[in-house]
Amino acid sequence: MSDTAAQRAPTACVLVIGNEILSGRTQDVNLNYIAKGLAERGVRLMEARVIPDNADIIVATVNGVRAKYDYVFTTGGIGPTHDDITAECIARAFSVPLVLNEEIHRMMLKRYPPGGLNEARLRMAYTPQGASLVPNPIQGPPGFRIGNVIVMAGVPRIMQGMFDAIRHELNGGPPILSRTVNCPLAEGVVAKGLGEIQARYPELDIGSYPTFGRGAPETNLVLRGTNTARLADAVGEVVELVRSLGGKPTEL
Amino acid sequence: MSDTAAQRAPTACVLVIGNEILSGRTQDVNLNYIAKGLAERGVRLMEARVIPDNADIIVATVNGVRAKYDYVFTTGGIGPTHDDITAECIARAFSVPLVLNEEIHRMMLKRYPPGGLNEARLRMAYTPQGASLVPNPIQGPPGFRIGNVIVMAGVPRIMQGMFDAIRHELNGGPPILSRTVNCPLAEGVVAKGLGEIQARYPELDIGSYPTFGRGAPETNLVLRGTNTARLADAVGEVVELVRSLGGKPTEL
Repeated sequence: MSDTAAQRAPTACVLVIGNEILSGRTQDVNLNYIAKGLAERGVRLMEARVIPDNADIIVATVNGVRAKYDYVFTTGGIGPTHDDITAECIARAFSVPLVLNEEIHRMMLKRYPPGGLNEARLRMAYTPQGASLVPNPIQGPPGFRIGNVIVMAGVPRIMQGMFDAIRHELNGGPPILSRTVNCPLAEGVVAKGLGEIQARYPELDIGSYPTFGRGAPETNLVLRGTNTARLADAVGEVVELVRSLGGKPTEL
Repeated sequence: MSDTAAQRAPTACVLVIGNEILSGRTQDVNLNYIAKGLAERGVRLMEARVIPDNADIIVATVNGVRAKYDYVFTTGGIGPTHDDITAECIARAFSVPLVLNEEIHRMMLKRYPPGGLNEARLRMAYTPQGASLVPNPIQGPPGFRIGNVIVMAGVPRIMQGMFDAIRHELNGGPPILSRTVNCPLAEGVVAKGLGEIQARYPELDIGSYPTFGRGAPETNLVLRGTNTARLADAVGEVVELVRSLGGKPTEL
């Protein structure tokens, strides 16, 4: 990726919080969903980290990345159990108290039958002082936002609902467009010419991904950038390169 | 997770290197495979990071995490194209030159027909000075290991072959065992009792994961640790807790 493009677009980091990802119990799918959504909004995802349900690690990591990127998205750890410590950690990171959020409290009083709002569930009504809410259109209590940190659930369909509810509010740059040319050639065959094209289009991010789906080696050549015309020119050069090497290019 | 258990077991970090993960083009599945394998070997995966194909970022990240953990596993960026810069970055991180590896060179001379081993492919024969090879039983050149850093391919089936080829060499602790109790109760119902059980078994890592597969709320309660007897005792308490709350527990 070119440094100029990276500097222009707002940046983001995703923190996936949860022992279940690090233990291998759960395959994370939230990062991919957020990554696609950020690209559409013109926000450049620079980094993602998966960290355990450990308060000191969460606090230190949040403070490290929120100083570095325009947006930080966290997933996981906002439920009612002992391992759900994200809200208190974010409060610690921002050095503010964790306070009962009246709006969430009212929602929960409505949701649960008398006696159902036990102590554990009530924990989910606490947010860091000064946080605003991230709507949860699916099920359960909302997420929240404080400063540039957006805190969402870990369950994928709930996380997706929350992200979709706030994505339009993100201050992005122009959308990052992507075009993919498939060719029936091994990566090593196109590598040299592709590198030359990348050098001529430093503002684009050109990637090469081998695939073996149909038995013989194929390569997907992915071009990304914000300038439609330059992207089209580079795609034209890639198509020409593939043809000149005896392959039949197909745009996916 | 208890601090004592975390201190006893060797630790690891996974670095997923590749713009394609951060752009959302590709759903990473390598982390999950490595995570499961490390748990079996008794190596505790403490952190994972997804970082872009950017030399300065790769070098700084590798140097940060290799000082902190017993093992660092990287995936991605060892192919023949311009965006494959992992080997040169690892060399820079270790302050050693990148040198032609005679063993890989011989393999490649055998593999390609005369003239097929072009300049781009030859790049894959270079490894940091002092590196040993990580066999690639699937296709293409091997990965390598230098110090505590193990460098593997990004294509999942190749990465899996490499990881399987070296996993027996890892100096692990006792395997991290996992047992899961499913219950037809919402997380908020079991939360209090579960937290009390966690407090009585600080050496275990007890997690709670809501699921909505069959319409009504269910919760999977996952208990992890290295001591079979203590794990069995805790599972017994969890089963008893679920029954006492009117749910029918099922061990998965």
